[in-house]
Amino acid sequence: MNNTYCIGIDIGGTNTDIGLVRDDGRCLAKKNIPTNMYFDVELYVSDICDRIRKLMYEHDIVTIEGIGIAAPMGNYYTGCIENAANLNFKGVINLSELFQQRLDVPVVVSNDANAAAYGELVYGGARGMKHFVMFTLGTGVGSGIVVDGKLVHGKSGGAGELGHAILIPEGRMCGCGRKGCLETYCSATGICRTALELMKSTPDYDGPLSKVSSDSLTSKMVGDAAKDGDSLALKVFEMTGYWLGIAMANAVTFSDPEAIFLFGGPVKAGDVLLNPVRKSFEEHLCFVFAGSVEIRVSELPDNDAAILGAAALVKAK
Amino acid sequence: MNNTYCIGIDIGGTNTDIGLVRDDGRCLAKKNIPTNMYFDVELYVSDICDRIRKLMYEHDIVTIEGIGIAAPMGNYYTGCIENAANLNFKGVINLSELFQQRLDVPVVVSNDANAAAYGELVYGGARGMKHFVMFTLGTGVGSGIVVDGKLVHGKSGGAGELGHAILIPEGRMCGCGRKGCLETYCSATGICRTALELMKSTPDYDGPLSKVSSDSLTSKMVGDAAKDGDSLALKVFEMTGYWLGIAMANAVTFSDPEAIFLFGGPVKAGDVLLNPVRKSFEEHLCFVFAGSVEIRVSELPDNDAAILGAAALVKAK
Repeated sequence: MNNTYCIGIDIGGTNTDIGLVRDDGRCLAKKNIPTNMYFDVELYVSDICDRIRKLMYEHDIVTIEGIGIAAPMGNYYTGCIENAANLNFKGVINLSELFQQRLDVPVVVSNDANAAAYGELVYGGARGMKHFVMFTLGTGVGSGIVVDGKLVHGKSGGAGELGHAILIPEGRMCGCGRKGCLETYCSATGICRTALELMKSTPDYDGPLSKVSSDSLTSKMVGDAAKDGDSLALKVFEMTGYWLGIAMANAVTFSDPEAIFLFGGPVKAGDVLLNPVRKSFEEHLCFVFAGSVEIRVSELPDNDAAILGAAALVKAK
Repeated sequence: MNNTYCIGIDIGGTNTDIGLVRDDGRCLAKKNIPTNMYFDVELYVSDICDRIRKLMYEHDIVTIEGIGIAAPMGNYYTGCIENAANLNFKGVINLSELFQQRLDVPVVVSNDANAAAYGELVYGGARGMKHFVMFTLGTGVGSGIVVDGKLVHGKSGGAGELGHAILIPEGRMCGCGRKGCLETYCSATGICRTALELMKSTPDYDGPLSKVSSDSLTSKMVGDAAKDGDSLALKVFEMTGYWLGIAMANAVTFSDPEAIFLFGGPVKAGDVLLNPVRKSFEEHLCFVFAGSVEIRVSELPDNDAAILGAAALVKAK
């Protein structure tokens, strides 16, 4: 038994999950602390290191290969979190340095979507692949791009921001200040937006979604309604799939990948989303790539996906 | 004087140019043969090899590093030309093998746009860059993408087909059978299409372009008219720049490059194209990349660009 171990840390606005990951991709144990209760980043990092030591102690592990951290606005090159809107820690925080001062092991920082893609490569369905693109659908749309077996970071760690590629010029207003970004259409938020627009233009609709206030509508509710055959909800996913299929076909023209992976809450809607995605992807894929690109759903286990992604970053160095 | 030398071959539908390139990026001499006069590929390759031997003999060169070949549908991985529409040689032609049987040196094959990007990296304005994207504007739109100092080829050599990324869903019909591809808007052909559309919707236009039959209109004529201040031609380039700026901003979300290079005939229109390109690019670039990406015009010398690109491929191995 010569297993090796990594720590994966998933920093969210509310919670921080810390997991002990064995080299076969099993997350052996997790701990968490409430991110939003901390205002002093030194204390925050110290408490995480305390949990790491406990995890190692409890599993009788003396050395770890390294620590991978997935964080909003996490930068692979600098090891910093840079002006993350949803965290109490403002400005530029050198996470990598703060951890290395306390635990002398390699520390790798990246953003959530890049970590997810790397998790898929190291522990998930992309094992052995050289070229793939992952789209992560959540509050926004993120992406991670693997070329020649390596994550594409770009000149300053900003590569893989396909959520902010413009899908429809002069289209929906985006939080980034521009119009028509992919994430205004295909994020969980975008799905709700489509549902609300459709309900507005279909005043006689009285299905399950009409009973929900616009503030409390979620993409899961739209997904559940679609699975139950609600025609408006099905139309929402048909439109979402149409848009996502175009974005996926466009990604193929860039890097000629073996597969496109989809990850995140909205993907759980299953075939009500995936069937229109497949249809649109085939229609919009340039003929030179026809039949050569798989559409895959992430194979990372739901509960541990973010931690596995973070832990996998250690293998990226 | 320890110079090394490569041969660069640019295969076009009409002519094949063969150049002797020194490692400082100077093309010392060229020869050419008429591609479309050959129907037997063995004879065609033999005649090219004969020109290569002559070039070497005339310059007293005994060894070359290798041969780089830029060809329509040229595949980097297989060394083949695959079903090129504009050549007499049909099916799959193993160019690399045909050359190696005659001249025992490394042979690298790729498509024109990838070769242009590599030429820029090895001999042009991208020297020393790790991340850039090149758009080549011609009859179509091609592109070449460099990540971490290497050309992105993808799983089967098809990467960098940004001319067939969909810019306007359900937009202009493209030769590839789909709608809204970038090249229907920003190629030389696309520029003429825009001019013809504008003239149709402006029946009282009587500027210089109205004197040209639609069959003989070229993007150069539109460029010349724009430089002379013709308002319709200026509007054409404003629209072209708007579209190209979006495509360039989208490419940035993929690979976070240091620069975007523009190459090809329409770029010679200069500021009448580049000013609208810059404006649109800035407007459509996601804020995280603001001010970080240069827009550059290719620095390869006009007459030798294709040969230098082809020769540079030898350095890609």
